[in-house]
Amino acid sequence: MAIEAEVARPGDPSERVADVINLLKQRFGERLSTSSALREQHGHTTTWLRNEPPDAVVFAQSTEEVAEIVQTCAAHKVPVIAFGTGTSLEGHVNAPLGGISIDLSRMDKILEVNSEDLDCRVEAGVTRKQLNSYIRDTGLFFPIDPGADASLGGMAATRASGTNAVRYGTMKDAVLGLTVVTADGRIIRTGGRARKSSAGYDLTRLFVGSEGTLGVITELTIRLFGQPESVSGGICPFPDVESACNAVITTIQMGIPVARIELLDSLQVRACNSYSKLDLAETPTLFLEFHGSEAGVQEQSEMFSSIAEEFGGGPFEWTTVAEERTKLWTARHDAYWAGKGLRPEADIVATDVCVPISRLAECVGETARDIEQEGLLAPIVGHVGDGNFHVQVLVNLDDPEEKRKADGFIERLAVRALKMEGTCTGEHGVGQGKQKYMRREHGDAIDYMQSVKRAFDPDNLMNPGKILPQS
Amino acid sequence: MAIEAEVARPGDPSERVADVINLLKQRFGERLSTSSALREQHGHTTTWLRNEPPDAVVFAQSTEEVAEIVQTCAAHKVPVIAFGTGTSLEGHVNAPLGGISIDLSRMDKILEVNSEDLDCRVEAGVTRKQLNSYIRDTGLFFPIDPGADASLGGMAATRASGTNAVRYGTMKDAVLGLTVVTADGRIIRTGGRARKSSAGYDLTRLFVGSEGTLGVITELTIRLFGQPESVSGGICPFPDVESACNAVITTIQMGIPVARIELLDSLQVRACNSYSKLDLAETPTLFLEFHGSEAGVQEQSEMFSSIAEEFGGGPFEWTTVAEERTKLWTARHDAYWAGKGLRPEADIVATDVCVPISRLAECVGETARDIEQEGLLAPIVGHVGDGNFHVQVLVNLDDPEEKRKADGFIERLAVRALKMEGTCTGEHGVGQGKQKYMRREHGDAIDYMQSVKRAFDPDNLMNPGKILPQS
Repeated sequence: MAIEAEVARPGDPSERVADVINLLKQRFGERLSTSSALREQHGHTTTWLRNEPPDAVVFAQSTEEVAEIVQTCAAHKVPVIAFGTGTSLEGHVNAPLGGISIDLSRMDKILEVNSEDLDCRVEAGVTRKQLNSYIRDTGLFFPIDPGADASLGGMAATRASGTNAVRYGTMKDAVLGLTVVTADGRIIRTGGRARKSSAGYDLTRLFVGSEGTLGVITELTIRLFGQPESVSGGICPFPDVESACNAVITTIQMGIPVARIELLDSLQVRACNSYSKLDLAETPTLFLEFHGSEAGVQEQSEMFSSIAEEFGGGPFEWTTVAEERTKLWTARHDAYWAGKGLRPEADIVATDVCVPISRLAECVGETARDIEQEGLLAPIVGHVGDGNFHVQVLVNLDDPEEKRKADGFIERLAVRALKMEGTCTGEHGVGQGKQKYMRREHGDAIDYMQSVKRAFDPDNLMNPGKILPQS
Repeated sequence: MAIEAEVARPGDPSERVADVINLLKQRFGERLSTSSALREQHGHTTTWLRNEPPDAVVFAQSTEEVAEIVQTCAAHKVPVIAFGTGTSLEGHVNAPLGGISIDLSRMDKILEVNSEDLDCRVEAGVTRKQLNSYIRDTGLFFPIDPGADASLGGMAATRASGTNAVRYGTMKDAVLGLTVVTADGRIIRTGGRARKSSAGYDLTRLFVGSEGTLGVITELTIRLFGQPESVSGGICPFPDVESACNAVITTIQMGIPVARIELLDSLQVRACNSYSKLDLAETPTLFLEFHGSEAGVQEQSEMFSSIAEEFGGGPFEWTTVAEERTKLWTARHDAYWAGKGLRPEADIVATDVCVPISRLAECVGETARDIEQEGLLAPIVGHVGDGNFHVQVLVNLDDPEEKRKADGFIERLAVRALKMEGTCTGEHGVGQGKQKYMRREHGDAIDYMQSVKRAFDPDNLMNPGKILPQS
């Protein structure tokens, strides 16, 4: 029951939006809303960037409905912004040119689980925790775990990762295939269920990380993994961030198949102690986890113990008891909220970079000194096994001096990572916040990203104003 | 010292080619050749498709030279075909529209090895064996191993994999970044050295698998791995291909981190016995290898042993002695030549497909019956841990009846794999041979591959007549 595509008419933008809202209202009734609270909530969400709400929000329930909405918007040249759980951090779902936010959260069906092939097919609104609850009894799990309980469609769109990426990869690796509604409202399928293929251009990985700017992801086929037979994990204190990073570097270089290796600096440990009722020593600390056979995880834990000692860290206290580990990892996942607790009234500017692991100690060290010199309150936490770390700057953005300091710090951090052959974002994505670093990172390759954008979305209607620099 | 781009002039194609050859001859002297033997050798190579030689071959020695050549060709609208070692199998380097073959084999410098980051940067003409010899003393290795000693640029261009892919991934996973000369002769860099990034569209993986149709890969940054502390490996006979496949499926599902798990059917075992002077029982056989700690590989080998027994296979004879394993794996890598030895005067039609692992036993079984019914001589060998297998059809292509049978068989195999939610090629690529299955596999997504092609190569000069269906 596709809405007839109408002839594009330039005319007044606000009139075109009004026409689209009118048409969608007729079609979707109560599932289309223009309430300002809902529109604002579908703008910046957890980001620190200025709120730019869409003109309306429509709740889609199927790929076909998404296609109808996109067709309607395309016919009237009105922007479309896909929305999952709204947990992105760089202004990904803001609507600087207005338009229609398509909320996919009601597309939450798990369509098939092929346990024998270690894969499943889900609608884009399914969240990672929902999927893991659903498949728990199959002996499988989905390892990718950004801090938030994000939707899998949103995670694919931002090329998300998390604490397990060092072992299980990121969304780039997890996604086998996609269903996408393109800018003209067509439904296409990319990839498939084979573990590998050399059959043509890798459109799947082109959509992964495209942040809704090339099309709307509505379904995903993703890889699952067997739950490890045994898991050991624990924490290991270090005298300073450099020694902790050096222990990480050695662990990775020795090929120990660590499943998680996370750094919390002293300030973050203090925040977690307070927020999650722990009593860890307030010093840079690594959280680790090993997956494997019983003998394997014991062996890996002992190997890491020696490495930590070599760098002046330890003791490495580890356990295979699930409850104790869960408490620690819940604290780790709550790091963002714990950080906020250090200065509850402050705004949070959350940022991340990623560098080659040999430069990690240097990059974290320089960053820590920068924080100190500027007198910022900014805990550091990171997926250091990948060379990826986050800084959460707690500032009052209404105070021009504080804002200036935070902006300068973020910029120096991005440039520092790029100088060390790293990237301006390891997993948060570009959104609006990192656009200005894109040409510096990619050079002339940006022109080819622009070409891809034009090829898929000639009218610049899919989440416009994101990723690509505006100049 | 870029050659000035001249104004494009339509004119006579053969005149334009003559002009380009003339210009390149002035610039590259002896490194430009129009000898028919060399041109033919730069056409179909190991493929079974009809030879379509380029008009000339030029040996490039740097990215800048490749850019010059491409600029000259672009200015005269003459096609460009990148050539590595010429070991592709689907007509990838044929020149159906003529043009200039750029031979990259002299770009064989290993530019940097960052052992602490487990990565390196190489020119596109470096081969996998050359790289592994070079880095042997660092304790690192590069695991991706197609049968041939292919160039790394060519391996990236075809999204190659090999026997280790089940554990270490394919070129899709191995490539961190690329230097590419685009269709207008610009030099761009994609990706970088960070282990992960969310900074924009994944151009790296768009070029990986694009078979030279979007640009010429001239340098690669690729991942390396630590040589395993211990390796065990061996062979395990089975009563039939189905039971062997079922043992593979269980091994993968149980999450045993097997490094290699390869199937040879009875005919292939017979061929290998003869070619590589082995005395294996001529029954479907799995070749396996496990990488890990000493205790780990022992544990994995024993677990596999029980699985094999469960499916009526065995005994699994394994060893950690390097020499014995090397003999077996050399035989496995020589399977193509061993197969040819079964009928030395015959042409070889080599093909591959990949299916979800749950369908592997069914797909291999049906294929084996098809071979039998048609009375074809066609050994099966495969990277079955990925659901990927190869068939090597030995036929006289000059005999119309034999050719008809072979064509029919290949077509049924591709369609069978697609019906089982697989892909028409797991690792050989599309080239010319698999173009006709592309729309069947990808549906309307093909239109977006066409859009990508037009965006990167509006004049269709980069390896034209490959991958995308011509209709």
